[in-house]
Amino acid sequence: MPDLQSKLARAFRPRTVAVIGDKRAMGYLWLRSMSTFTGKLYSVQIDPDEIPGIEELGVPNFPSLAEIPDEIDYAVCSVPRTIAPRIIADCAAKGVGAVALFTSGFAETGEAEGAELQAEIGRIAREAGLPLIGPNCMGLYNPRLGVRQSAEQPTGEAGPVGLISQSGTHAINFGLNGAAQGIRVSTSISIGNAEVLDIPDYLDYLAADPETQVIAIYAEGVKDGRRFFESLRRASKAKPVVVWKGGVTEAGARAIASHTAALATPNAVWNAVVKQAGAITAESMDDLIDVLKALLFCKPGTGRGMGLMAMTGGQSVVITDAFVRAGLEVPLLTAASYEKLASFFNIIGGSYRNPLDMGGTIGFGGQPQHLERLLQILDEDEHVDAIAIELASGFMARRWQADPASLDSLLDLLQAHRERSAKPFVTVLHPGHLEDVASQARARVGERGLAAFASFERAAAALRRAIDYWRQQEGLD
Amino acid sequence: MPDLQSKLARAFRPRTVAVIGDKRAMGYLWLRSMSTFTGKLYSVQIDPDEIPGIEELGVPNFPSLAEIPDEIDYAVCSVPRTIAPRIIADCAAKGVGAVALFTSGFAETGEAEGAELQAEIGRIAREAGLPLIGPNCMGLYNPRLGVRQSAEQPTGEAGPVGLISQSGTHAINFGLNGAAQGIRVSTSISIGNAEVLDIPDYLDYLAADPETQVIAIYAEGVKDGRRFFESLRRASKAKPVVVWKGGVTEAGARAIASHTAALATPNAVWNAVVKQAGAITAESMDDLIDVLKALLFCKPGTGRGMGLMAMTGGQSVVITDAFVRAGLEVPLLTAASYEKLASFFNIIGGSYRNPLDMGGTIGFGGQPQHLERLLQILDEDEHVDAIAIELASGFMARRWQADPASLDSLLDLLQAHRERSAKPFVTVLHPGHLEDVASQARARVGERGLAAFASFERAAAALRRAIDYWRQQEGLD
Repeated sequence: MPDLQSKLARAFRPRTVAVIGDKRAMGYLWLRSMSTFTGKLYSVQIDPDEIPGIEELGVPNFPSLAEIPDEIDYAVCSVPRTIAPRIIADCAAKGVGAVALFTSGFAETGEAEGAELQAEIGRIAREAGLPLIGPNCMGLYNPRLGVRQSAEQPTGEAGPVGLISQSGTHAINFGLNGAAQGIRVSTSISIGNAEVLDIPDYLDYLAADPETQVIAIYAEGVKDGRRFFESLRRASKAKPVVVWKGGVTEAGARAIASHTAALATPNAVWNAVVKQAGAITAESMDDLIDVLKALLFCKPGTGRGMGLMAMTGGQSVVITDAFVRAGLEVPLLTAASYEKLASFFNIIGGSYRNPLDMGGTIGFGGQPQHLERLLQILDEDEHVDAIAIELASGFMARRWQADPASLDSLLDLLQAHRERSAKPFVTVLHPGHLEDVASQARARVGERGLAAFASFERAAAALRRAIDYWRQQEGLD
Repeated sequence: MPDLQSKLARAFRPRTVAVIGDKRAMGYLWLRSMSTFTGKLYSVQIDPDEIPGIEELGVPNFPSLAEIPDEIDYAVCSVPRTIAPRIIADCAAKGVGAVALFTSGFAETGEAEGAELQAEIGRIAREAGLPLIGPNCMGLYNPRLGVRQSAEQPTGEAGPVGLISQSGTHAINFGLNGAAQGIRVSTSISIGNAEVLDIPDYLDYLAADPETQVIAIYAEGVKDGRRFFESLRRASKAKPVVVWKGGVTEAGARAIASHTAALATPNAVWNAVVKQAGAITAESMDDLIDVLKALLFCKPGTGRGMGLMAMTGGQSVVITDAFVRAGLEVPLLTAASYEKLASFFNIIGGSYRNPLDMGGTIGFGGQPQHLERLLQILDEDEHVDAIAIELASGFMARRWQADPASLDSLLDLLQAHRERSAKPFVTVLHPGHLEDVASQARARVGERGLAAFASFERAAAALRRAIDYWRQQEGLD
């Protein structure tokens, strides 16, 4: 499509938005989602029964797109599928920047009627040079401008993550779950059946977008594998790209056909393509957010030797298994480190060979200020390339409940370490039975710019892929 | 040890408990843990500065074990390690049922002094026929009798799970995390360095214990592999045994040596032994609890064909990938099922080929009562051996927040299905961004006797191992 990228630049930072076909029976899904829009919002609805309800929301309504006395940068369309072709033609005639078609019931139904309708709206959009997002999608989320995919998504603060999602659910949830963990969105696009615009079009946009530092993708399939590969390779040269593929199993492929009518790609082929393009793989929503945390919150580092710190002997075994299983190493420390540690480390009920079982030294009857010494010793140890620490044991969570200031001073100490040290640093706050305390504490650790994970296994898996990426960037693998 | 099992039967259901050497500086760790004990509790402390504090807790104190005018069924001992041999000799002289030695600083330090002390207490106990638990352990947890490993653990209601844990942290956390998820303990033993009594001794006890329906083990190593195998095989014939092995990596083996001085077993050998014995493997605390949920809350079934139900298209892809990745199958349904489904299922924004993308049919503008029909169709479908359903989407969580009664009626419906159907049935309530609502709802689902998991992946992994176990019980694999 000619000038596509400049058209997307207009539509993805809109000054005007039109919602077409919203209605009471849907709870005014789209008008409520756009209620936070900072620009001018218009409604298009011809049904006289629906118009008073829309006007009550304070949104000016017009019986047709043509009658809106303004240019429309972005439109979202929620009309019955049989009417969709006419509305797409209206959008083309109006010169709308881009239109997202929420309407579903197209190729994903597996029925001829839906497939023909989808081909028809595609033809209309392509002939007119109209960027059509979807159909069967939730469109755009731009938190800075208050354009949303759901009335629950937060607005105001933009983040560094650009998202392309073939699932509307995953797009909405990424905005919500990510924000709850400090991973915020610059621009997110739910792309649905991708009839006209496909992943490479959005990827080219986000690769060039100065607000986007890292790109995340949930993909079910791509139409043109070669084009996807080239676009992914270009984007990966500009910034990290993390790709979560849905429908990796045979039955999963049946599910994606019913969901977005995407064609299956054998999983081995897909993974090879992603790796060769220099992108990073993820396996679930949690995993995607975890990898982004490691990329955004850790200092980059290319070594695989971990310095591990746990609160008890049992957890020191678990943290070690987790990092080694993820493909990282847990080396012995240098003689110099052991000499320093021997001078103050309590080995009755503890140990420091790496992992450090440090509860008795800093926690249970020990001295919290020793934590700073331990971090410094690991930071100076040349066998240690990256550091992981267990923060939330039941013991710690209870202390924070009883004395919230003790969490503040711990966070000060950890933040100072992160700023001083050049090594990747990850923290683990597992939920345990004090799920609320641990998850609140995890959020507060995240607010300090520290990577905080919900389990040893998740921290290890995320850090491993970040290190692989940093190694590749340095030409080490 | 002669009469060991009858000695353990006495000690693990004690009528009298003695706490030896507790003190203010430790926050009366053990006296507080035993404050819920339903029998008679005694303290032994010779330090005159400590005695008033102990008496303030209402516990009668004696300067020596010998002077307690009662038999002692179970003693927990927290004295400096150099004094431990004398106290163990006192326990032997008194004829104590069993003693748990909390004291650490023995073989796990890797130093000669600790190793020699451990050998000495072992010799004393063995010669006297005294069952010694530990050292370096948290001893016994019997919720029904109020004997605890930590003052946080719940008491009163006993459960069906017997636990043997080589880590005190994991023993305590299992009691706490499990209870929060409806997995309660009959008898739990933290076994520490296992100098005298080892896993097979405890396993024989729990295999014969009528209160214990299923056994869970966290093991770091065993001294006598042949004896462990025989004991595990015997126990597995009586009831399901789930084994989580810590220290499965080379560095993890170093960590277990520092933790409980256990010797490493190559992981492949370990897994082969566990499998051959007819036991079930687990890989983490969460995984252990998940497998127990499947075993305890699902009807047993031996088929691998899943009927999958999700709230949106995106999640229908994820649930399918998760179950297939775990080694289960997602077959097409029978023609009869498709005929029934076609009569009412909304395929605009949904699909029913299996997985069922049912949001539009039962949730968003659909009819909740259709859920019962969907469950019944899958229950009657001969291609479907087990059923998994996504319960918590953001949409559902919001509805439950707004209308708590809607959760009750959903739970009634699900419970009725579980009672009617002979097929294993698992539910998934992922945390999303409404972590609190989802985890409260998950607890309520668990209270109804339904297996509730925090992610598709965890549900699939747990159910897979339960099915493998049930198949093996039926001689199918």
